[in-house]
Amino acid sequence: MKIVAAKKILKANDQLAAENRARLDAAGVFCLNVVGSPGSGKTTLLEALFAQLKDRLKPAVIEGDIAGSIDSERMERIGVPVVQINTEGACHLDANMIASALKEIELKGIDLLAIENVGNLVCTAGYDLGERLRIVVLSTSEGDDKARKYPAIFQGSHAMLITKTDLLPHTDFDLERIAADFKRLAPEGAVFQVSAVRGDGIAEAADWLADKCRGN
Amino acid sequence: MKIVAAKKILKANDQLAAENRARLDAAGVFCLNVVGSPGSGKTTLLEALFAQLKDRLKPAVIEGDIAGSIDSERMERIGVPVVQINTEGACHLDANMIASALKEIELKGIDLLAIENVGNLVCTAGYDLGERLRIVVLSTSEGDDKARKYPAIFQGSHAMLITKTDLLPHTDFDLERIAADFKRLAPEGAVFQVSAVRGDGIAEAADWLADKCRGN
Repeated sequence: MKIVAAKKILKANDQLAAENRARLDAAGVFCLNVVGSPGSGKTTLLEALFAQLKDRLKPAVIEGDIAGSIDSERMERIGVPVVQINTEGACHLDANMIASALKEIELKGIDLLAIENVGNLVCTAGYDLGERLRIVVLSTSEGDDKARKYPAIFQGSHAMLITKTDLLPHTDFDLERIAADFKRLAPEGAVFQVSAVRGDGIAEAADWLADKCRGN
Repeated sequence: MKIVAAKKILKANDQLAAENRARLDAAGVFCLNVVGSPGSGKTTLLEALFAQLKDRLKPAVIEGDIAGSIDSERMERIGVPVVQINTEGACHLDANMIASALKEIELKGIDLLAIENVGNLVCTAGYDLGERLRIVVLSTSEGDDKARKYPAIFQGSHAMLITKTDLLPHTDFDLERIAADFKRLAPEGAVFQVSAVRGDGIAEAADWLADKCRGN
């Protein structure tokens, strides 16, 4: 694991994001930006997807956190190369941080680079990192009103992964309501229901992601 | 319900926060800033606390949201005066927004003004609103590593309310771990475990809040 401290933003974010995208495309690496609230289950979802995809794709991860390296240690435990970005207070990753982190990753042989953003349903929405796909992770325990209260992050995402469906019997979460709200904000967006602890829905989400990686 | 759009910040936040605090103190209103992730259960907690305190305190609420008025409608349904602030994308409330909202509230007869901040475990940490007390709400479904990953918000809070304890049997949330982390960040901080849907722990938290309102 390597740790990169967030540096002052030197160039406009969009320009740097385009440079990151070009660099990753040239290296044949498909880049995924994973956003969601703190505790929505982003790391656990990635662990489950990587296990499902282990014979098909070679992944690497960039972990974004305010402080610490808890999630990076989890990735190391499952043998996935990881770079930790400590934002030192910043509430989202930006393209400049990703450009710095990319210098620490051996892209050769990597098919999928997953960037786990800082847990934040607001600020991450405004920053293109150079990804090809953005997914928003929403857990059933967060409530089904989140797309109405935080529309921007849903609007700019290619898929919504509803996590912790094992908790559905213990909540009043309405799957139809959130799906309808997401459809309104992102008409082309895919919706998956998963329980990483039970494995429900992981195969479908992994197949979809593998298809996207192959350019479909 | 009245809706105030977020205005350009005109003065330094801390100065405005001090002015808000002086104004609220002069009016005999105790101000509470409630922070936490999206879906941590802030609104449901306030509903439960207000029900418990209804013969002791007269509350009012300022609701902060990126968009919409879902939470304000919930407050109106239980007869609590409410002002909705739409931040129009901003990821936290600030003291200037609160100063604007205060113009829309009849403070006379109000004992407790609860400000429900935007759901955000990062950006809300840096902004004093003029409150006397800040509580951080963390749900059991978010995971017990949050104080380590988002230390600033816990460090500046007077109490941590662990919500959704009814979900404990269905998660691996470790109450001792989060309590130890919180104690390290906020040695004087109080910890409450509540389930608003079952009512567990609400009386204790409400008694503590009522004591604080009375200056104890």
